[in-house]
This record gives sequence, structure tokens and C-alpha cells, in this order.
Amino acid sequence: MYKAAILTIGDELLNGLVLDRNASYLARRLSELGFEVEEVRSVSDRSGPIQEALRNWEGEFDIVLMTGGLGPTDDDRTKAVLADYLGVGFERNEEIEKDVREYLVKRGREVGDRDLAQADMPEGSQIFRNPHGSAPAIRVESKGTRIIAMPGVPHEMRVLVEEQLVPYLMNELGREPITQRTLVTSGLGESDLVERIEDIVQELEKEGVEFAYLSSPGMVRIRMMDMSDRGSEGEASLDRGVNALKDRIPEFVVGVGNKSFPAFIGEGLEDKGLSVACAESCTGGYIGHMLSSVAGSSSYFNGGVIAYSNSVKKALLEVPQEMLDEHGAVSGPVVERMAMSVRNCIGSDLGVATSGIMGPSGGSEEKPIGTTWMAVSDGKDTMSEKWTFGDQRGVNIERAARAALNLLRKKVELL
Amino acid sequence: MYKAAILTIGDELLNGLVLDRNASYLARRLSELGFEVEEVRSVSDRSGPIQEALRNWEGEFDIVLMTGGLGPTDDDRTKAVLADYLGVGFERNEEIEKDVREYLVKRGREVGDRDLAQADMPEGSQIFRNPHGSAPAIRVESKGTRIIAMPGVPHEMRVLVEEQLVPYLMNELGREPITQRTLVTSGLGESDLVERIEDIVQELEKEGVEFAYLSSPGMVRIRMMDMSDRGSEGEASLDRGVNALKDRIPEFVVGVGNKSFPAFIGEGLEDKGLSVACAESCTGGYIGHMLSSVAGSSSYFNGGVIAYSNSVKKALLEVPQEMLDEHGAVSGPVVERMAMSVRNCIGSDLGVATSGIMGPSGGSEEKPIGTTWMAVSDGKDTMSEKWTFGDQRGVNIERAARAALNLLRKKVELL
Repeated sequence: MYKAAILTIGDELLNGLVLDRNASYLARRLSELGFEVEEVRSVSDRSGPIQEALRNWEGEFDIVLMTGGLGPTDDDRTKAVLADYLGVGFERNEEIEKDVREYLVKRGREVGDRDLAQADMPEGSQIFRNPHGSAPAIRVESKGTRIIAMPGVPHEMRVLVEEQLVPYLMNELGREPITQRTLVTSGLGESDLVERIEDIVQELEKEGVEFAYLSSPGMVRIRMMDMSDRGSEGEASLDRGVNALKDRIPEFVVGVGNKSFPAFIGEGLEDKGLSVACAESCTGGYIGHMLSSVAGSSSYFNGGVIAYSNSVKKALLEVPQEMLDEHGAVSGPVVERMAMSVRNCIGSDLGVATSGIMGPSGGSEEKPIGTTWMAVSDGKDTMSEKWTFGDQRGVNIERAARAALNLLRKKVELL
Repeated sequence: MYKAAILTIGDELLNGLVLDRNASYLARRLSELGFEVEEVRSVSDRSGPIQEALRNWEGEFDIVLMTGGLGPTDDDRTKAVLADYLGVGFERNEEIEKDVREYLVKRGREVGDRDLAQADMPEGSQIFRNPHGSAPAIRVESKGTRIIAMPGVPHEMRVLVEEQLVPYLMNELGREPITQRTLVTSGLGESDLVERIEDIVQELEKEGVEFAYLSSPGMVRIRMMDMSDRGSEGEASLDRGVNALKDRIPEFVVGVGNKSFPAFIGEGLEDKGLSVACAESCTGGYIGHMLSSVAGSSSYFNGGVIAYSNSVKKALLEVPQEMLDEHGAVSGPVVERMAMSVRNCIGSDLGVATSGIMGPSGGSEEKPIGTTWMAVSDGKDTMSEKWTFGDQRGVNIERAARAALNLLRKKVELL
């Protein structure tokens, strides 16, 4: 297995102002290509720590990916440090000089010496041209370690990775993307989930399949990777795994593939030609946001009512005052009525509704913080569920929205 | 200045399945206490790389913070590695043994040997008790470097940091939190913002104030830190800075302090005793979500209508068909009508509305992708704005929601 390390460069990573999304993106892409990422390191844009990292890794790792510090300003020192580390000078790369000129002229900016200095590359280095910025990626090799320095601007870096680095790694090192499957689940915490599928996991691990779990509030993503290099037999193992998991926990499997959670829900609606509207109390618009975050969702999502106050529940969603008095707003009858009514109010085949106590206040002995009802209705049948989440407001909102959308998914499957 | 390093431990950080939020949280808290974080490193839970990091840092740094690998399973090896590194054995900590027993009994679980092993600590170490989990934090010292290993579960770690680590660092090292101010702005990109306030920044930098910028879609957070150790004079510099910025770009300053974006909006509404409802087309519920994500928001947020389709705009928000025919759904007249109508529909003092083309499709020559209208109405006066965002759907939704809420803030200030 090829070994890799990642070095991200920038003060904003060391003062905590920015999350290091570049590192996690590169780590994910490298593991998908079958590299073992052994270390991720962030340092400031200074010669000492960058050179120390390269010294630590050189000869040990097959690939070192670096991001940041490649811009045109004085703060950007990565290129000079790289040349210094290799003990080489600079040479002007004419292809890059042309790119820099074009890039600036297109934006109506003057071409200065400092801009052109971006075309000076460490002697003997190779480059990947940057279609979305002026700083190219630089590739050098030292003691068998391939070092690739890329700009830190996320969208420039990602395009470089997808269009140039990944093909390079596949050709140069004969890497093939690892065969893999992703399952998105909802409704089981990671440890409950692992317990329920333990025997399936063990069986597949014997065949060389690796499992990884990614938890977020209300969902766990399972990634299965065939590390056995058995080609179509590996594919067959993965497919067997997917089917075994779907058989074992059908009510919790939201979908198979690299889609977002709401995209799976939308796909189900689209397949059946059904539309949905949401009636949200405790989720306050988050279900609508999730559904409408999917491009093209207007073909099945019409809109909804955010019924945060009881007066809106009564006025727009036909929840009677007596029902509120008898059962309270956080109750099965109220949430079922909301799901039923919002269909007519908005005009849709299905309605999905939530009502709960998200915290930090508002709980009682009978209905503690986290108590949440959700319902789905097609006008004829209405199903509802009660969940008791925890005491963190933000997490509860996400869990409630995903649980409600999973209930919607189950309803759609029955139709 | 004290120097610090952060080591986060776990395979999920190296295969890119999770973002390293612990590292960025710790980095932020350490810089706020005036530490210079020189390196952040992530490795898997194995002896070799953990010991290598400690060897690299020992004697060099004042503080090393580690997270992860402290649980009760075989995967969690940090404690053993730490003892091995220091060349010491284990001793049972009775306080922790009691905590572990209580923790498990409270949850109705049996107390096994493996659980009790969590109370075995490297000889000579100090601990911080963990009020939210069974694994405490471990503190050791080697060659003048204070090494603190904490559990990786984010909410457990954060409570430990706030309640125990921060007071410890302040007492032990005589650290005082750096005097600072945070300004939240909306409507200017980072480079435009920096250009507009350049002279103010330069003036304050001369007095020892450091500036840092944290950009997200539709907002830039400005952090000003007094690094001069001048006490109340430093405070005065910061206050002068805050006032100068508010005078320079009043329409873009959402608030001063460590609140979330919607919390500033909510505060303005609460101060004036006003309530708001949202009528969301392109933002699809995200404004409702932002407003209702704030605890206590039900005192000013009643709810809203997600008018994703034109039929909802007509049926619930009284937008006439002729207006849609003449101007299109993405237009000033339509969005103004939505803002006006939603007040009556939901029952609130103010209405805020959005309508736009978020992409990736749906644009035209006249109205390219990113074209977005927003409006705020108090029933008498209605103000609207047009923005042209970019071509990334998710980013556009966030920018539209924040721009609409900033428009709402400006309206509230005038009332």
C-alpha cells in the first residue's frame, strides 16, 4: 500500500479561525485511491516548520501533498521554501507566464513583475496548470517521495486534484480507485448500528472489505471498501454486503450511493411522481431547507408552512384549539393534523410535519427536552412517530429533520 | 509568548471521513488565551506516530494538547502510549474508579474490568475529571512540556476545556484571556471589506492590535485582539476600533460580540418588541431555520411560508398572476408583495421575503443564476434589494438568507 502525508499551510489553520477542509478533502480522495494517509500536519507559512515536515517525511512516504502559501503576496513562501529545501534555483516557466498574463488581462488588471514571478518555478520541477487561478501546482521528487504543492483556495485546489492530480496518481503509480459502496442510514446511533450488523461486517472483513463509519446528527454513513484487489469478485462482495445490510435494517437505510441525505428522499419522490409539503414547528424551516438544497427539487417540493407558534398551527393548519388544550402542541394528534392539513394548504400529494421541544428550556416531567413528534400523511393514511432526543438544540433540530424525512421515505416506499 | 502544539488522534481524521473540528476548536481557544499554536498534527491511534510527535515537541513547546484514543475499547491506545513514552507503569485512581462506577450504574449498565481499567492512570499523572463521560483527561509533564490528553468526543472535550483546562492554564501559566472584540459583518466580501477599512486597521496595528478575518458565505467575522498587554489602554484601543468600523461601514455591521448571526438579528427584534415572519422562495426555509436556531426565538419569530412554487405565492401570499406574468417570480414587485402579505398570513409586525435563482439551472440572459431579490415590510413601508450572487447553489442560499436578515436588521434599526 502506498503511504501518504498531507501538509496544510496557513496561520488561519493555527488560530482556529478556519476549519481545515482542504486536509479532509485530500485525505478522503487519497484513501479512495487506496493510499494510506499516515499524517496530516498544519503549520504556518514559514521555512522552518515546512522544511521540518519534508525532512520527516522524505523517503518514508510515497506522496506528500501540500496546500497553501503559493499566492503572489509576500506571505506566500512555499515555493521559495521548496527550492531552498531542494537546493535549487528558479527558472521561468513560459507556459505559466502566458497563463498569468492571460488571467490578469482577462480581468482587466495590469501585469506586474510580482505577478510574473508566479511563473518562476524551482529548477527541475513539473507543474499542473491551474485553470481557475494564477498559481499552478508544483511537483518535485526527492528521495523517492513525490511532493506536490497546490494552492490553498479550495475550489482551485479541488479542480486541480480532480482534473490533474488524480489522473497523474492513477497513471504514475498504477492506482485504481478503490471499489467501494456507501450506505446512508438514519435512526440508529453508531454503536447500536454496529451492534446490529456485527456479523455481516465480520463476514465481509474476512473477504478483505473494510468498513468506516461517519456519524452526524440523525444519520450514519457506512463506507465499505474492497481492499482485496479482487476486481469483480470484490465488487460482488460489496454488493452482497449492501444487500445484507438492507435486509437486516431496511427501515434505517436511507439510500445507497454518494448522494446527500435529502437527495435520496427527493429521488424516491421523483420516482413515484409524488410531491411533498412540510409543516414545521420545532424544525423551524430546516426540513424545507434540506429538501430545497437539492438542485431540481422544485419538481417535487412545493413549499410549506413554518408553524412555529400555535396561532399559525390553528390559522393555517386547521389544528383546533381543543386539540392543543387536550394533548398539547407536542403530541401525536397535533402533528398528524399538521401533516394532513399542509397538503391542502400548499397543494401537494404528501405532507410531513414536526413538533417537539428542542431545548434548552421548555421541557416538563411528562415531556422532557428532546421529545419530538413527526408525522407523514397522504390524505388517506397518516403515520406518526415519537422520538426522544438529547438536550442540545442544534443537534435536536438536525435529528428531528432527518427522522421526519426518513419517515417520509418509508411512506413513499409503501405507495 | 507561550508555544503550543495540538495532536488529534483517530483514523477517521486520516481517511477524510470527519472534519477535524476538535483541532480548530482547541487552536481557537489557545490563541484566545495568547498561546502561539505552531503545529497541528493528526495521526492514527498507534504508538509510533504518537511517540514521534511527543519526541518532536518535548522541550520545544510549553503545552501539547492531545484528543482521542482515550475510550475503553482496544482501539484506544493513547493512555498506554503515554505511559510507555514516559517509562512509567499504571496506578488506579480511586476518584476516577468511583466516577466510572457511578456513570455506568446511572445508565443501568454493568461494571466490568474493562470499564474499571479506565481508572488506571500513568504513574505520576494528574487528571481532569470528565463530567460528561467516563474517560478523564490526563495531564503529565516531560522536559518542561505540559502534555494534556483529552477524550475525542467533542462535547466531552469542550466541557473539560472550558471548565478545567482553561482555568488551569490561566492559573498555572498566569495566562489572561487576550482582550478582544469581534464584529460580524454582512454584504462585503473579505477583500472589499479589508480595502474599505485599511487605514483604521493600520492605525490600530500600530497600537498593538491584531486583526483576523473569518469568511463564510454572506458574512465576514472580524476579530481584533490587543496583543500589547496594555490593560485598560488596550481595551480603549479596541473600543475605538469598534466605533471606527461601525462609523465607516454601518450598513454592513450586523453586531459586535461572540453571538451567532441570527442571534444579533433576534436581539434587535427583541429590543424593539417586534415579531417577524418569513416568506421564502429561493431560500426554501433557511431563513426560518436560522431564526429558529436561536434559543428563545419564539418570542419574536412566529413562523413563515415556504413559497417554493408560484402556486403557493399566489394562494397564501396574495401575489397576483398578472404580477408574475409581468415581472416574473424573481422581481422586486413580487418579493415586496410576499414580504407584505406574510405579515397578515402568519400574524407578525414584520415580514422578510426572498426570491431568486440559486442554480445550477434556471438562469437567463436578463436574470442570470445568482440573481436574488429580497424585501422587508412593516405593512406601511416596504424596502427591497437586488443582489447578484455566484453560481454555487449552497453558497447562494446562505448568502441570500444572510443578506435578507441584514436588510431586516437595517429596517428594525429605523423603527
